[in-house]
Amino acid sequence: MIEICEVGPRDGLQNECKMIFTETKVELITRLIDAGIRNIEAVSFVNPKVVPQMADAEEVLKLLPNRKDVRYGGLVLSRSGLERALKTNVDYLHVVTATSNAFNLKNAKRTVEQAVEELSKVIHEGAATNKGVAGVLGTAFGCPFEGEVPLSRVLVVAEKFMKAGCSEITLADTTGMANPFQVQNVVTAFYDEFGKELSLGLHFHNTRGLGLANTLAGYQAGVRKFDSSIAGLGGCPFAPKAVGNVCTEDMVNMFNGMGVETGTNLNQLIEIAKWMENNMDRPLDGMLMKAGIA
Amino acid sequence: MIEICEVGPRDGLQNECKMIFTETKVELITRLIDAGIRNIEAVSFVNPKVVPQMADAEEVLKLLPNRKDVRYGGLVLSRSGLERALKTNVDYLHVVTATSNAFNLKNAKRTVEQAVEELSKVIHEGAATNKGVAGVLGTAFGCPFEGEVPLSRVLVVAEKFMKAGCSEITLADTTGMANPFQVQNVVTAFYDEFGKELSLGLHFHNTRGLGLANTLAGYQAGVRKFDSSIAGLGGCPFAPKAVGNVCTEDMVNMFNGMGVETGTNLNQLIEIAKWMENNMDRPLDGMLMKAGIA
Repeated sequence: MIEICEVGPRDGLQNECKMIFTETKVELITRLIDAGIRNIEAVSFVNPKVVPQMADAEEVLKLLPNRKDVRYGGLVLSRSGLERALKTNVDYLHVVTATSNAFNLKNAKRTVEQAVEELSKVIHEGAATNKGVAGVLGTAFGCPFEGEVPLSRVLVVAEKFMKAGCSEITLADTTGMANPFQVQNVVTAFYDEFGKELSLGLHFHNTRGLGLANTLAGYQAGVRKFDSSIAGLGGCPFAPKAVGNVCTEDMVNMFNGMGVETGTNLNQLIEIAKWMENNMDRPLDGMLMKAGIA
Repeated sequence: MIEICEVGPRDGLQNECKMIFTETKVELITRLIDAGIRNIEAVSFVNPKVVPQMADAEEVLKLLPNRKDVRYGGLVLSRSGLERALKTNVDYLHVVTATSNAFNLKNAKRTVEQAVEELSKVIHEGAATNKGVAGVLGTAFGCPFEGEVPLSRVLVVAEKFMKAGCSEITLADTTGMANPFQVQNVVTAFYDEFGKELSLGLHFHNTRGLGLANTLAGYQAGVRKFDSSIAGLGGCPFAPKAVGNVCTEDMVNMFNGMGVETGTNLNQLIEIAKWMENNMDRPLDGMLMKAGIA
């Protein structure tokens, strides 16, 4: 059994040009729940001027079905984001920093150290509420500007985030630079450092066609929680030709073939993917919706 | 170290609509050799009326550089194909059958048993010459018409082909139905049955996004020979929306990241891929040429 964290409504849509109606986002999330998804990164509490696509976070959360068995996550990058999040019914705060200085300076105008210092307070404050806090470490497998990101630095940021109150860590391959051996090495190092009881998730992009190979490598190394995006929605604004997150239904198809339970209905996921492709007015990257189930 | 068998000039181009000049094919193969490729499925000795794209097999072989360190392969599906091949300087005969009756009846108008009987004679005769003979077993991981193809049947066909004179076997996932666990199981069964000294290759299509995940699984199971197609050229006429073979440069990028030697120059491969994309007048599936090396 693996757990999927569906990030299409946030990481996916955030990187799409076409503005999506609040109602469509709510319908998307509701349909994903119907298809068996139980963990959804639903919104982002970022500056609406910087990311207009995510400006309706509060509205989306208000309109979502009230389900005790579903976990809604919201991205938080700052104190102001935290303040917004705490006023909503979001279940989990996904607190994000890149682990590369060059990337973080471009993306968030601060060094990793500065980010960790500020975000540790945010995590601490968030964890003192009734909400959970997950730490997401971007560029954990490499940075498009800096190249290699030392594993020791990724481990240090994870440790500080957990000390501040994160109950889980997700390692994100922000621009699709990871390879399967690296994934196994990094995951093994994390379990060695923090113990097998660490709640560890992986977040891959399929930029260089390695999304599912890296997912497989992570699974083999013991990880049971993977981010993915319906229809492969998304991309990365810093890597213009890059494709998006690992595609949810393509990943489910892989695990189904391997006999690994995902708790989802693949036919429903494909229908949702096709519907989203219509909504986006552009071909999306998901492959199963084109080829059909084998 | 892995060995790449580049199948773009044959399996790739055969499934492309646009007719390619003989000179372009020769330039493609010559450039691939310059980039380090040493094993190339260069031509197909099929009926030119059925596959016009491959009608110039003899002409291509005549114009190719005469290199002792390069192995040129040609597809052979019948006695008449064998007769043509034996008059050329092709190094290896790639004798192919599907292992699914339904697929073989559609594709070659004969059952697997009939194909094996006829092709065993072809293999026997070919192996008696100065040429090598490789057996390629299609739909080895599943059939789009029949579904599951029993592993026992694939093993039997392989055994008959080897008894007839094949010095190596390639298992082909013709329409991209394989999954990583299955690849590991099938490969393990082959080594168990025929011994670790079996010369075994794998041929994957990326139809459902699993091409590189399956390649990884095959590598982990001990395989060191993989077919791939530059720029991801190709597809399958029986799976209309299917994408092509595993993309050579994307695969090399994965192995480079993993520290596994391929003997090729990735930058040159990317240049060739871009040049082929221009030649084909359509976007090809290779991802690295869009995203760049990490």
